[in-house]
Amino acid sequence: MTDQTLRCPRCGRDGTGTAGCPACRADGVAVNLELPLADLRGRDLASYPGGPWGWPGTVPLPPDADPVALGEGNTPNVRLEDPAGVWVKNEGANPTHTHKDRYMAAAVATARAGGSTTVIAASSGNAGASAAAYAARAGLRCIVVTTSSLPPVIHAQILAAGAVVVGFPDSVARNNVMRRAVDELGWFPLTNYVEPGAGGHPHAVEGLKSVAYELARDLGDSLGAVVVPTSRADLLAGIGRGFKELVAAGLLRAAPRLVAAEPSASAAYVRALAKTGRPAQERTEIPYVSTAAFSIGSDVANWQGLQALWDSGGSAVAVDEADFLAEQRGAAAQGLFLEASSAVAVAAARRLPADGAVVAIGTASGVKDIDLVLRDAPPLPVIGESLTQLRELLQRVSGR
Amino acid sequence: MTDQTLRCPRCGRDGTGTAGCPACRADGVAVNLELPLADLRGRDLASYPGGPWGWPGTVPLPPDADPVALGEGNTPNVRLEDPAGVWVKNEGANPTHTHKDRYMAAAVATARAGGSTTVIAASSGNAGASAAAYAARAGLRCIVVTTSSLPPVIHAQILAAGAVVVGFPDSVARNNVMRRAVDELGWFPLTNYVEPGAGGHPHAVEGLKSVAYELARDLGDSLGAVVVPTSRADLLAGIGRGFKELVAAGLLRAAPRLVAAEPSASAAYVRALAKTGRPAQERTEIPYVSTAAFSIGSDVANWQGLQALWDSGGSAVAVDEADFLAEQRGAAAQGLFLEASSAVAVAAARRLPADGAVVAIGTASGVKDIDLVLRDAPPLPVIGESLTQLRELLQRVSGR
Ligand SMILES: [Zn+2]
Ligand SMILES: [Zn+2]
Repeated sequence: MTDQTLRCPRCGRDGTGTAGCPACRADGVAVNLELPLADLRGRDLASYPGGPWGWPGTVPLPPDADPVALGEGNTPNVRLEDPAGVWVKNEGANPTHTHKDRYMAAAVATARAGGSTTVIAASSGNAGASAAAYAARAGLRCIVVTTSSLPPVIHAQILAAGAVVVGFPDSVARNNVMRRAVDELGWFPLTNYVEPGAGGHPHAVEGLKSVAYELARDLGDSLGAVVVPTSRADLLAGIGRGFKELVAAGLLRAAPRLVAAEPSASAAYVRALAKTGRPAQERTEIPYVSTAAFSIGSDVANWQGLQALWDSGGSAVAVDEADFLAEQRGAAAQGLFLEASSAVAVAAARRLPADGAVVAIGTASGVKDIDLVLRDAPPLPVIGESLTQLRELLQRVSGR
Repeated sequence: MTDQTLRCPRCGRDGTGTAGCPACRADGVAVNLELPLADLRGRDLASYPGGPWGWPGTVPLPPDADPVALGEGNTPNVRLEDPAGVWVKNEGANPTHTHKDRYMAAAVATARAGGSTTVIAASSGNAGASAAAYAARAGLRCIVVTTSSLPPVIHAQILAAGAVVVGFPDSVARNNVMRRAVDELGWFPLTNYVEPGAGGHPHAVEGLKSVAYELARDLGDSLGAVVVPTSRADLLAGIGRGFKELVAAGLLRAAPRLVAAEPSASAAYVRALAKTGRPAQERTEIPYVSTAAFSIGSDVANWQGLQALWDSGGSAVAVDEADFLAEQRGAAAQGLFLEASSAVAVAAARRLPADGAVVAIGTASGVKDIDLVLRDAPPLPVIGESLTQLRELLQRVSGR
């Protein structure tokens, strides 16, 4: 099955490798190559066990290759208590507390099946921590390359898994080294290293289809919209592919609308969809502005992301910094502590018309960026045995 | 159902409240009061949906009361790749990344069902973070009281959920204030505040039975032993109760052996079981010595913990500091980053005779104590575009 042909969905040409379609790139558009959609006819959705390996074959591996698994998938759907009644699919319940575990399970299994012993990932966030854990599980050596400092939890996760993390002065230097490591040393690239990026590893994107399968199993035809924090759009693309497979097999009546959620600072998909006609939309580049939603926001509207929006009748929603930070606090005040970029999706979901169940993908746990909480935290108050002191403190701190 | 009588399992007397049985305390033994075991006859184990609320009634609530849920339970079983073939049930996949979520879901639902609007928990660890999240989910005010500083992730989780955290000079002051807050202000105690502690809130312990139900569903009669990181033994007691219910209903042939895993520094259960006769065993107190496994280790062999060991033909295993820290690194090097106290269980599990499947409970994610990893971490190395530099760095850092 690994010799399944990769094909460009835009121009229809067959291709190889992870740099996307050369013909479309020459035409000014970065397009990822894709595997054929899986045929789900005859599968029983109600008994789908969840995760990328729940339905063997939906992430293609050679017949003699083993999956790489740490118990990823089957994350819970939590309904927020507010008038909008938004659902959050809490991907923080994955092994490294992020949806990237579905991607990395597929990526690392593909690497091992192809004989690789070393994998390399460009990331300063969830992808790096997940890559390190899954490489460790598979017995592969892992190098994480970054251009910035790492949040402390991410850093600890990478080091604990025995991966090596290396900084570079800028993304040009990082990508150059990564390309040479792939070309000259034969290391397996878990992430993209060509700018502008066409998307993640085509086999790894297949692992993300499991989000759609689980949503279809759990919420079925009540699904109205799925809101996805979006940068290079691997998650959006993978979810879109999963729903297409389900609809083609008659397991779901129609795909829900897919919605790209972005920070206003770098909202490439919103900008793209505001243009007229696909030729203009698919050539959208904007300046990148950094944001507290550090794992999303993009200077490029990725073709596969746009495709997921076009094909599902979806849209893109930009959320201002203050609004998604307030949403992060709001969800945490309901017990659901999400990373800031997940809160972008929650905020976007609230603005959609209620036409069926609206699900925001909570892409990672809030523990991934604790600095956002701790930097404003007062020192721990220490008091004596007086109840009065305790009540005064509560009044002062909580206002009730 | 909430008026189900609490009873002391040691002397058979009925009782009320959360301070344990007064008659047994007068006899020198702290014993928790217990609810009657649930009758599971007629339930279908294969379709048990997991979590404390998966089988309604197994955590008793009044008929008009709602559960409090964030998607807790259904954590994955991950088999470590080594000769012992130990399984780890990874409770880090719970919403706040700890098994305490099963306990706090039940505790907070009980509090709300009884009309409480404020809950209080003594903790500087996982219980505090979980209490804060579940109280937030239930719309209750939450106060976390502690005698020490908090690990940064725990601190961030508590603050994000809007709970108030307060320090006290020592546990005597903390317990005095907590007792008065319960008695005079009517706050609901999520944890014990009497020394020596009889155990957690009796209704909350019922939430932990779901660990046993899930293990029975997933591994069935292949289960040989379940190894539990143990301090005040709520988890051990809850798992023991769950297996008793399953066996009584004919859903499992026999309960697996339960094993208390402890740091050698404070191994009260090992000390207790080395004595002859229950009267001596149930009166075991040792000096408490602090350990890197900060959430376990105990100066007292709790009665309910001993009961779980006695009734299942189990045992207690002490693990030296260096050994469980090595085990924490070893599991992380297989992709499973656990808190140090979970690694105590993994190390203990490896020492057991292989008689059926041996499962160590991974009580919380390694992200809970990242300082253990980061304090020895070198600064992020930054290099240029030379592949030689990259290879030299790898050689130096990873030794391969
Ligand atoms: Zn093309
Ligand atoms: Zn008694």
